[in-house]
Amino acid sequence: MALIVHKYGGTSMGSTERIRNVAKRVAKWHRAGHQMVVVPSAMSGETNRLLGLAKELAPSLQNAAYGRELDALAATGEQASSALLAIALQAEGMQAVSYAGWQVPIKTNSAYTKARIESIEDQRVRADLDAGKVVIITGFQGIDGTGNVTTLGRGGSDTSAVAVAAAIKADECLIYTDVDGVYTTDPRVVPEARRLHRVSFEEMLEMASMGSKVLQIRSVEFAGKYKVPLRVLSSFTPWDIDLAEEASSGTLITFEENEQMEQAVVSGIAFNRDEAKISVLGVPDTPGIASQILGAVADANIEVDVIIQNLSKDGKTDFSFTVHRNDYSKTIDLLKGQVVPKLGAADVVGDARICKVSIVGIGMRSHVGVASKMFRCLAEEGINIQMISTSEIKTSVVLDEKYMELAVRALHRVFDLDKDEEADSIA
Amino acid sequence: MALIVHKYGGTSMGSTERIRNVAKRVAKWHRAGHQMVVVPSAMSGETNRLLGLAKELAPSLQNAAYGRELDALAATGEQASSALLAIALQAEGMQAVSYAGWQVPIKTNSAYTKARIESIEDQRVRADLDAGKVVIITGFQGIDGTGNVTTLGRGGSDTSAVAVAAAIKADECLIYTDVDGVYTTDPRVVPEARRLHRVSFEEMLEMASMGSKVLQIRSVEFAGKYKVPLRVLSSFTPWDIDLAEEASSGTLITFEENEQMEQAVVSGIAFNRDEAKISVLGVPDTPGIASQILGAVADANIEVDVIIQNLSKDGKTDFSFTVHRNDYSKTIDLLKGQVVPKLGAADVVGDARICKVSIVGIGMRSHVGVASKMFRCLAEEGINIQMISTSEIKTSVVLDEKYMELAVRALHRVFDLDKDEEADSIA
Repeated sequence: MALIVHKYGGTSMGSTERIRNVAKRVAKWHRAGHQMVVVPSAMSGETNRLLGLAKELAPSLQNAAYGRELDALAATGEQASSALLAIALQAEGMQAVSYAGWQVPIKTNSAYTKARIESIEDQRVRADLDAGKVVIITGFQGIDGTGNVTTLGRGGSDTSAVAVAAAIKADECLIYTDVDGVYTTDPRVVPEARRLHRVSFEEMLEMASMGSKVLQIRSVEFAGKYKVPLRVLSSFTPWDIDLAEEASSGTLITFEENEQMEQAVVSGIAFNRDEAKISVLGVPDTPGIASQILGAVADANIEVDVIIQNLSKDGKTDFSFTVHRNDYSKTIDLLKGQVVPKLGAADVVGDARICKVSIVGIGMRSHVGVASKMFRCLAEEGINIQMISTSEIKTSVVLDEKYMELAVRALHRVFDLDKDEEADSIA
Repeated sequence: MALIVHKYGGTSMGSTERIRNVAKRVAKWHRAGHQMVVVPSAMSGETNRLLGLAKELAPSLQNAAYGRELDALAATGEQASSALLAIALQAEGMQAVSYAGWQVPIKTNSAYTKARIESIEDQRVRADLDAGKVVIITGFQGIDGTGNVTTLGRGGSDTSAVAVAAAIKADECLIYTDVDGVYTTDPRVVPEARRLHRVSFEEMLEMASMGSKVLQIRSVEFAGKYKVPLRVLSSFTPWDIDLAEEASSGTLITFEENEQMEQAVVSGIAFNRDEAKISVLGVPDTPGIASQILGAVADANIEVDVIIQNLSKDGKTDFSFTVHRNDYSKTIDLLKGQVVPKLGAADVVGDARICKVSIVGIGMRSHVGVASKMFRCLAEEGINIQMISTSEIKTSVVLDEKYMELAVRALHRVFDLDKDEEADSIA
């Protein structure tokens, strides 16, 4: 008998028909002898519907003054879907009870619309589990120190599920979603892309931050911090498939570094074209340059991703970085208006038509030559690299966006990710 | 400066446009110097939508096992509308805060789907009011002793508003609804029916229980018990009408018996055709007959309204009562199967085609001849009276249903309720 947390996304909860299927699936796990906690999202479309009503009432919801009420409003979506799931389980003959975040309680700070979980009480949940009940806990929400409802931000239900799993020391947290696992890269770009059976949480972190939108990045961080085994799997398999088959499907995100994992070099290729590149040219190469440029950008609440400072030449250097494309013109204006005159830089140039492609793999730690293999591969395809950024388990390059698919496919092949089922797993 | 509670029904909260109008109206009151607490219902249709989803998941929601989750589900409707109203008020430049029942808290017993309010904490609300905020409190719901969400049953938001008004010792509780007050009778039956400016809470109680569905009866009981001045008024007047005009519109339900009120004899005519008449004939006239007949009916969970026992003749009597029409056949079957054989009664007869017409008036206490004036009026119209039942401030007759409109119109005229504006009010 294991203690298991299931998390179901909005699509999986999108209709009473689907909620009934979730109930049947959970009942199957419970009847197999497992203690079950379920964390559902709101029914798909519900959060948007509620926030749409709010938007009709207040023109600028970004105003922090609305935060408390927006959270009270949005939290009702998960409260309703949780109660509906409890009713569906009861209709299946199960004992089930749903708790809103404040009832558990899931305590958070008071940062409305993007609160952080601080602690989770497990007594009430444990007592119900020991009494044979299925416990349903609303995703996405909590309660702050003065009794106000908070939400964790979009996709927060993943984080809720992992945090609950950590608090009750669950044996595994299963994230049921509309994809059947984590792939070596996006199958829409590379048809040969294959599902990974296992991936380390550090690799998952790099992939999540690169926009492989399978899991909210905070939930992966949480899983790593509390060593919660996390599995991403499809909610679209029939509910009555064999439990052992279901339990080993999808992708296991693990914190264990076993020997087999060390053998893999590159686990996946991540990519996006969400960014734009900006270069400040002819900057005096004196201490504090980076903080002067990036400080102004940060003050304008613009997030910076890749940062490169070139070698100095004649006491001048070029300083480049990427921002989200939505922030591109704003950043250019900011630099031209404030930073360039102040620094005495020569010019600011930029390019919004770029992409970022990364190879990710925990094996890169112990293997030399991985990055140069990447660069050689791109060179052989005639692709010019504009920027390079490396971390322990990731190497990212910025390219002209027209090369994105070509680069991803070539790298996928070069790092043997096209190979057969035997090699498909890094485990 | 007064402390005022406003309650808005589902229709008044039925769209963002209407919620904005509610916010503007509340803001007008606040700007006039009043401390404001608002109790909204869920947006119209929302509670039905949520319970409809539940019904798709569980065939027999009547099962008490579903109660806890049904309440958790239904309570989200008012939580959302309350947050939306807070946002609308903030968009109007007001400070506003919404509280769910559990946040106030409004403590209830654990009778899910029909909970009773036990106590209301007023500290948090008072602190907010003193800080100049408009406080919004969800109608319809509370929290029980072990932290579960409860609801008060359909129409419970009226009761919530009155209970909140009692707890914070509000100067007046205004119930905004889709009618503009309490009428002498239903204007669809008697075009001459006129709005009452004042009505005593006892009269209102009799009218509410007779099916004048303006206010939930429990809210009127509550208002009487805690002496909360209650006003029923239209939410469809323009939000920007003169405040003094608005504040004296509608109907005031008052617990004060002033001299003027004593002058009125009959305030209104109530009627319904929801009932059916049943007579047990030839019952031995011995002690305990009534309890034997009605005990069996009560055990079957059937509510009895009018009860008449005729004079005895030759040691036998006839015993008649009315039940809701939906319970008619069930009651007949029950009596024929169990009661008649046991009592040795002669027969059971019944009639579902009846109506009940009542005259209601606090002045009946001190005026003689009111009932006989009613009977004479009906006789002059050629209407046969089947049953009569009287209380201190009400006289009800059971008639063939075909005479209902005729009787109501005749009584409305005979008791001078058709008269001009001056007489329209009992005040």
